[in-house]
Amino acid sequence: MKPIGVVRSPRTEVVDDHWGDVVATIELSPQELEPSATDGLAEFSHLEVVFLFDRVTDAMIVRGARHPRDNPDWPVAGVLAQRGKNRPNRLGVSRCELVAVEGLTLTVRALDAIDGTPVLDIKPYLVEFAPRGDVRQPAWSAELMSAYYSS
Amino acid sequence: MKPIGVVRSPRTEVVDDHWGDVVATIELSPQELEPSATDGLAEFSHLEVVFLFDRVTDAMIVRGARHPRDNPDWPVAGVLAQRGKNRPNRLGVSRCELVAVEGLTLTVRALDAIDGTPVLDIKPYLVEFAPRGDVRQPAWSAELMSAYYSS
Repeated sequence: MKPIGVVRSPRTEVVDDHWGDVVATIELSPQELEPSATDGLAEFSHLEVVFLFDRVTDAMIVRGARHPRDNPDWPVAGVLAQRGKNRPNRLGVSRCELVAVEGLTLTVRALDAIDGTPVLDIKPYLVEFAPRGDVRQPAWSAELMSAYYSS
Repeated sequence: MKPIGVVRSPRTEVVDDHWGDVVATIELSPQELEPSATDGLAEFSHLEVVFLFDRVTDAMIVRGARHPRDNPDWPVAGVLAQRGKNRPNRLGVSRCELVAVEGLTLTVRALDAIDGTPVLDIKPYLVEFAPRGDVRQPAWSAELMSAYYSS
């Protein structure tokens, strides 16, 4: 698997919250993609981005359970029951707003990936791919997310 | 990157549509995960699954643009402006309903991955990670999706 691009963000350190107003660019690789790879992309308002948490070392990866964000106020949960970065294969998946497309350079808002993050895939977000039926999730996960996208 | 599991599905051939009622299991790997990796997962109604389109050969990968599903009725679009399988890094990302958790075996509904598909990550779906603001997408993409999750 080869990165198809890299995130250029004003955020250079690993931080948890307040991603909503962060504007970043994704510089796509002309080695991996032809210029036409982004044709028609601007017709979509949102992207789904798959990226690599490349600052996570092997020793940091959790394969069992832990408190989310190591916060003892929240119950221990399996690594697959949380979205933290210290996970097998170190994959991140996020939705963000697509602000502009200029060739192989994309400007995005609210992408929760720091400067230098390798990008593995970009897909257009389609409403038909949203979850079908009511979404249920535990209270701790909503608490954890309370400041995630706020300013 | 190593698979953390594999899809076991009644669907064994590559097909485009009618995924809504397909019930499959994800057999997670005890080599990659401890039994506690799924603790608390049943509190979530939906999963986000990252998987590999492993039947796609290098020769099939599109790095520029093409008609979605090779259908000339739809406009040519860049590979990053569509969600088809023939893409760099061959990554799929889908939401599905979580039906049951039994140790490292998950039962899911409407996962659009065929039998034998390697699974690279599983995350809980959180409403806070849905796109913020109105979603806009071109007409062709809604047409393409019209029978995707229907019975």
